[in-house]
Amino acid sequence: MQAKPSVLVIGLGLIGASFAKALKQNELATVYGFDADQTVPSKALDCSVIDVAVSDLNELSQIDAVVLAVPVMAVDAVCSEINHLLPQLKLLTDVGSVKGAVVEAVEKAFGHLPSCFVPGHPIAGAEKSGVEAARSDLFKNHMHILTPLEHSSDDAVQMVTQLWQGCGAEVVTMSVDRHDEVLAATSHLPHLLAYSLVDTLARESENREIFKYAAGGFRDFSRIAASDPTMWHDIFLMNGDATLKILRRFQADLHQLEVAIEHGDGDLLRTVFTRAKSARDYFTEILEERKARKV
Amino acid sequence: MQAKPSVLVIGLGLIGASFAKALKQNELATVYGFDADQTVPSKALDCSVIDVAVSDLNELSQIDAVVLAVPVMAVDAVCSEINHLLPQLKLLTDVGSVKGAVVEAVEKAFGHLPSCFVPGHPIAGAEKSGVEAARSDLFKNHMHILTPLEHSSDDAVQMVTQLWQGCGAEVVTMSVDRHDEVLAATSHLPHLLAYSLVDTLARESENREIFKYAAGGFRDFSRIAASDPTMWHDIFLMNGDATLKILRRFQADLHQLEVAIEHGDGDLLRTVFTRAKSARDYFTEILEERKARKV
Repeated sequence: MQAKPSVLVIGLGLIGASFAKALKQNELATVYGFDADQTVPSKALDCSVIDVAVSDLNELSQIDAVVLAVPVMAVDAVCSEINHLLPQLKLLTDVGSVKGAVVEAVEKAFGHLPSCFVPGHPIAGAEKSGVEAARSDLFKNHMHILTPLEHSSDDAVQMVTQLWQGCGAEVVTMSVDRHDEVLAATSHLPHLLAYSLVDTLARESENREIFKYAAGGFRDFSRIAASDPTMWHDIFLMNGDATLKILRRFQADLHQLEVAIEHGDGDLLRTVFTRAKSARDYFTEILEERKARKV
Repeated sequence: MQAKPSVLVIGLGLIGASFAKALKQNELATVYGFDADQTVPSKALDCSVIDVAVSDLNELSQIDAVVLAVPVMAVDAVCSEINHLLPQLKLLTDVGSVKGAVVEAVEKAFGHLPSCFVPGHPIAGAEKSGVEAARSDLFKNHMHILTPLEHSSDDAVQMVTQLWQGCGAEVVTMSVDRHDEVLAATSHLPHLLAYSLVDTLARESENREIFKYAAGGFRDFSRIAASDPTMWHDIFLMNGDATLKILRRFQADLHQLEVAIEHGDGDLLRTVFTRAKSARDYFTEILEERKARKV
């Protein structure tokens, strides 16, 4: 039997720590953990999230795989600190919610795109954050999107696929550009709209009195406006082009509805609402199938 | 002790039937129920939602209060059918989600605004619909907005206030115009945005493939796009002016964010997101206080 690979997870926030914990519990790897906050790796050790707490990356000499679970804006700097591990590395991957910017950062840090590098993005999250909130089942039956590059070796793609599948994820593959387009549409734009609407209403209303009259529909719609402002600031700066593209299409479509309301064009409103309801009902089916598989 | 008033609820959908059930369970009234669907009142009787099933409005000669719980577009026609009850009526109220259009419809039907008429709107709802889904606690600790008119008598306002308070609602009063503005902002515009975004994505994507990659944030944001297209078609036609006003403010604010993304203006993004998060966190507090009172 082959020895378990050594996997170093850099960044033990919710996603990094949950992946570490899942790798460890499923006995897929000997898991090393490092975090910019020096107190975190020992906490992770106490919570059985990792096998080995790393306090200084320079002390490590041989690691099979590195998972970058840091903010995308920190990827460049972190790569520079693991330069010495690169020659022996079989896999370098990440979990960032934009992929084009990560690829640029890695290329900048190393001067080239290493063949062990396979970018990735798990479509999972939770309300809570931090190492204490880590859940080994966070990725079970969730999509994990891989965006292999021209330079990515088959061995690296195979290894990262096996690690995520071993944690229960459904691994799918697409191009970097397609990933950034898909996420701009399904995640980044909805966040922008929720932030923007809540801000419009808050500025509109003396003492935010208007929120007293809001009900369940608004509660659900606006939940994502409570997300971390810094993280989302980063995402919009790093995925600006794809976000602007879908935002402009949305603005044009919304303008059609505005004109329809202005002119009392009930047919257009009913057509759009009916089509949207049908698509949303289809999405509900997807969610229910996924939930059924998870039980 | 005064005898219980007789209350006729016209329209036994979720809201009408839940109010009927709450009035009956709290022994606030003898509840008569009528519905355009002739099979519904007997079902309501079987479920203990009402005391008396009415099959023909002409058979009734004396009723103290009428609650219109029909689609707003049907108010005009329904009022014409209760003309004979008007002379003795102490209260006429409704539960429509727009108020200006209801006032117009009542005035058109009767040729004037009766002093017993006090428009109202309970800020409550549920995923399910129909008489079988009726819940007597649906309004408990929820807002009920009354919009008394210049002509509304004090007795009518007092009676409707007591009925809703008796069902656990928190009764607040505002003008018709303010109601329609507040609801345009907190309910109608979010529905329009959710419908519009889901439709943009569905038309964008071959076979709706894009929804496969959507996660929890999108699920919550887009839930209201599964609402009834006909009901929302009615609402936008009937509350067009207020919706357009807040929609245009939103579009201008969203355009600012578009420009900020285009120019990489991170400061503006962070400022807006931080302000929105603070407002959304405040809304969470309101919801949690309300929930704590409900337990």
